[in-house]
Amino acid sequence: MKHTLQVLKDSEKSSIKVESGSNLLEILQLEEYKIPAPCGGAGSCGKCKIKILDSSIETVASEKELLTDKEINAGVRLACCHNINQDLKIRIPNFSDIEVLTDGMDLDIDYDPKLYLKNIEIKKASLNDQRDILKKIKDKYSEIKEIEADLIKKLPLLEKEKANFIINIDKIIDIKKTEDKKLYGIAVDIGTTTVAFYLLDMLEEKELAVYSTANPQQKYGADVVTRINYTIETKAGEKKMQQEIIKALNQGIDNLLKKSGVEREDIYQLTVAGNTVMMHFLLGVSAESIAKAPYVPVFREEVEMKAQELGIKLNKNALITLLPSIASYVGADIVADLLVTAENKTQSYLLIDIGTNGEIILKNGNKLYACSAAAGPAFEGAKITHGKAGVAGAVSVYSADGYQTIANQKANGICGSGLLDIIAYLLENKYIDKNGAFKIERLSDEQQKKMIDYKGKKAFLVVPAEETANGEEIVLTQKDIREFQLAKGAVAAGINLLLEKAEIKAEELNKIYLAGGFGSYIDSKSTLKVGLIPEVKSENIIKIGNGAGLGAKIYLLDKKKKLQSEKIVENVKYIELSKSKEFQNYFMESMIFD
Amino acid sequence: MKHTLQVLKDSEKSSIKVESGSNLLEILQLEEYKIPAPCGGAGSCGKCKIKILDSSIETVASEKELLTDKEINAGVRLACCHNINQDLKIRIPNFSDIEVLTDGMDLDIDYDPKLYLKNIEIKKASLNDQRDILKKIKDKYSEIKEIEADLIKKLPLLEKEKANFIINIDKIIDIKKTEDKKLYGIAVDIGTTTVAFYLLDMLEEKELAVYSTANPQQKYGADVVTRINYTIETKAGEKKMQQEIIKALNQGIDNLLKKSGVEREDIYQLTVAGNTVMMHFLLGVSAESIAKAPYVPVFREEVEMKAQELGIKLNKNALITLLPSIASYVGADIVADLLVTAENKTQSYLLIDIGTNGEIILKNGNKLYACSAAAGPAFEGAKITHGKAGVAGAVSVYSADGYQTIANQKANGICGSGLLDIIAYLLENKYIDKNGAFKIERLSDEQQKKMIDYKGKKAFLVVPAEETANGEEIVLTQKDIREFQLAKGAVAAGINLLLEKAEIKAEELNKIYLAGGFGSYIDSKSTLKVGLIPEVKSENIIKIGNGAGLGAKIYLLDKKKKLQSEKIVENVKYIELSKSKEFQNYFMESMIFD
Repeated sequence: MKHTLQVLKDSEKSSIKVESGSNLLEILQLEEYKIPAPCGGAGSCGKCKIKILDSSIETVASEKELLTDKEINAGVRLACCHNINQDLKIRIPNFSDIEVLTDGMDLDIDYDPKLYLKNIEIKKASLNDQRDILKKIKDKYSEIKEIEADLIKKLPLLEKEKANFIINIDKIIDIKKTEDKKLYGIAVDIGTTTVAFYLLDMLEEKELAVYSTANPQQKYGADVVTRINYTIETKAGEKKMQQEIIKALNQGIDNLLKKSGVEREDIYQLTVAGNTVMMHFLLGVSAESIAKAPYVPVFREEVEMKAQELGIKLNKNALITLLPSIASYVGADIVADLLVTAENKTQSYLLIDIGTNGEIILKNGNKLYACSAAAGPAFEGAKITHGKAGVAGAVSVYSADGYQTIANQKANGICGSGLLDIIAYLLENKYIDKNGAFKIERLSDEQQKKMIDYKGKKAFLVVPAEETANGEEIVLTQKDIREFQLAKGAVAAGINLLLEKAEIKAEELNKIYLAGGFGSYIDSKSTLKVGLIPEVKSENIIKIGNGAGLGAKIYLLDKKKKLQSEKIVENVKYIELSKSKEFQNYFMESMIFD
Repeated sequence: MKHTLQVLKDSEKSSIKVESGSNLLEILQLEEYKIPAPCGGAGSCGKCKIKILDSSIETVASEKELLTDKEINAGVRLACCHNINQDLKIRIPNFSDIEVLTDGMDLDIDYDPKLYLKNIEIKKASLNDQRDILKKIKDKYSEIKEIEADLIKKLPLLEKEKANFIINIDKIIDIKKTEDKKLYGIAVDIGTTTVAFYLLDMLEEKELAVYSTANPQQKYGADVVTRINYTIETKAGEKKMQQEIIKALNQGIDNLLKKSGVEREDIYQLTVAGNTVMMHFLLGVSAESIAKAPYVPVFREEVEMKAQELGIKLNKNALITLLPSIASYVGADIVADLLVTAENKTQSYLLIDIGTNGEIILKNGNKLYACSAAAGPAFEGAKITHGKAGVAGAVSVYSADGYQTIANQKANGICGSGLLDIIAYLLENKYIDKNGAFKIERLSDEQQKKMIDYKGKKAFLVVPAEETANGEEIVLTQKDIREFQLAKGAVAAGINLLLEKAEIKAEELNKIYLAGGFGSYIDSKSTLKVGLIPEVKSENIIKIGNGAGLGAKIYLLDKKKKLQSEKIVENVKYIELSKSKEFQNYFMESMIFD
């Protein structure tokens, strides 16, 4: 018996005849839809989300664990958990080539945005009441103090009918018909590598669409320092960086509009998190001083302006709001992370956001300490022989049971979480000693088979040639392990230095929050094994996903977050590692595995 | 013996050989330079101003009376007062075809503008002081709270040198090099007929250039009601009105720049006075509700926005500030007048600004009363058989001694002040009775000669055919006198009604201020004779000239005027005449001369 599977993706539709009982994930992968499934369809990673339309399917146990109630009620299911036993219509969310976490923690955000919609009704004028229209509005609605000058011309319509005002705290920023009750906002996380977008309905308090795309500035350098150097060497380099990101923002907005059916002029605010360099480039500001000692940014505070002044196409009075930053290398993305972790009211915790830099925040009571450890891009796959970003085909999970790749594609490299697992495996099984050196002579015969010759030296075989995408083996070399040691040494040293400054011991920490893509995919046990983070109970390691994006959303939905962010920035004690002797000592110690 | 007279006007230069002893004004008029000289070169009106360059000429007595010390020191002289006895280089100010008062009262303005220039110097960053540049500025200069977001990119320059900031109260709106100490502003009075511009150096507190031009909206109607009707009947009519005035503002600005050599980007504010309809049109706002009962404007409050949002070309962060209005027919121009008269701290006064409408303000102690009497355009020359606006050639002065025309040109009509003089003459010499009717039978033979046949009826001969520009006589008809009576009746009735409301008698008034072009040119004695204004000592009649322009200047130079204007608007009791029975009674009475 055959069933009809209708698949909607973006604006495309297709219809597939499938045998009854076929697994939904398998069918979709067969049809070449790119769906992330790092667990290989085992129902344990919760990534292969699709949405059931026009019908309903009961949830299975693992879905109840991995999906939020909101998602389940909205028809979201995991494709791997269901066989097709009826005609189905589904929508596939947009998974970019580069995987970005766009869900994050599911928090109970206090809904109190600075922008709101207000229904207005005023009396008709008469010879006994010759007040002008604007005066009548202000007299009746004392919370309204100002109006965008270009809207005054819309006020005469009010004489004939009621209206809805869009208000920014106390200023009218749009006038709409009474039946037009729409107010949307967008939160954006501008990462060095990836830009993530979230479209929110600010009246219904729900997320309507999500999108992510590569940061087009990458063509000028993979990391921020290379990009800053480009701007120093190139005439109007900052302007180019700015144009690239503005273009990406406009394309992202276009995409959200297409996905959601929302109208551009109904979007009134864009909140932006990102590292300090991204914030500088967005405003076309030179980041030269960030790259050179004494590593000082031009600005750190919240910046708000009309989006159209930057050439961002939303409602003409829409605002763009950049979250404040803490320091040159502890940016608005970390402030956003902290807005997320602050929701938990934990007494003491570490927040670690690892990318090219490892930003580390330590909270001890009322005190906050921050530093940025130059981990290098090893965790993002760079400088590793077969390293890869978190793209489809990258080995993301590794254990004695074997490996898994992102999106279940044929293996094409090793991404950060895979690297961590492999190193943990090598330590566990004594392939390497605590100094990170291969100890081949100590290995069993079975183990020795995994050590192959690679370009004249012994290397650990991760994936045999016959299983890879290009037919060549994927290995981990001694040099790769050294790169890893440098990266993990920098992060661990930063953590140790902050613990010392805050006068708190690792074991006294209530929580460790891991933020960002890398932090979300890594296996907690491997992380502990390699000594990247201090020893805590693994249930106290919380992965907050894309905390920067989530923080930008919170900032959009709750006006109190502005003041809270200012307080964070004011209270954080930033430790500059480049001038710290203690850091150098910790760094040497932390490269060792023990 | 011949001398060389070099004449500079705008960007043109010319050189003239003149006989020694020639009168400067006569030479300039011979050379067809348009120079106002309503007194005909008698040294009494003070209008034929020119500026002596590269040399010096002693002042004569009447110049000391008619020119300010500032002007005299700057080399300004009256052309009519000097014969040419040496080589001279002079500049001729720009006199438009339509004469507008651009000098006004010479007041001692409190210099306290919202925009100011501040010299900034901050310390270099170090590893011990990693504060961002903006934070260092705010920490050191606590009065600075904000910055225009587009200027953040200019901050890195500060690391290398000091800078000058242009600050709007507490917000940085421009960053300049230390040697660049320039801050200019423009005050504008948008009249229904004429737009007057004043360029001010806001650091040196001096006027650099003045310009006036016709309001191009005139092609859609001579008065505001006709223009409003045009906007109602025409699609996007408001937009057209807005485009016209914006174009005129930009042309006026271009002209001021050319005259003064000031750079566009050094101009940071434009303050604008004008009647309520002009304020609506400037913002593209429908004025329909102003023209129809109950005559309510859309807005009256001060409006401030970036000039570039309106397409006005100044510094990109320059502000445009519209003064607030009192009512539909008592506009921001009258608020500006009141800022001028307020300087005198008179206990009780009348302020009268006569154009198409006669706006009347009565101050009695702390109380202010306002009304607008629809005088009709008779005072501006319309509806009068040979009426003219105040253009060159219009009869502006009339007495038993004869007549004078503006700019001493051949007579081509009668303007408002001439009309007033003629009516006063006719009353004085009993050509007309108190009802305004010609009483030809009572006239002497000599007088009878002045009563000629004009289109079948008797009319008063003002200028014989052989003295006029087109060779036809200029007359005043019985119908013209009726038109005048309607106009003066409306104004006088408005005054009487306000006196009644304020419970004060005319003789108790300390002053009567006459504002606007008409008010400035009219002869006080004639004004009293025809009963346009109440009987007061003629020294208590003060002509404030273009009070609207002067008020806009004061507003630019003293930030306290914003609050003062708000208080004026709040405190004025506006009397709507259209629903007032008392006004109708006063109107009937006031048409009579007695």
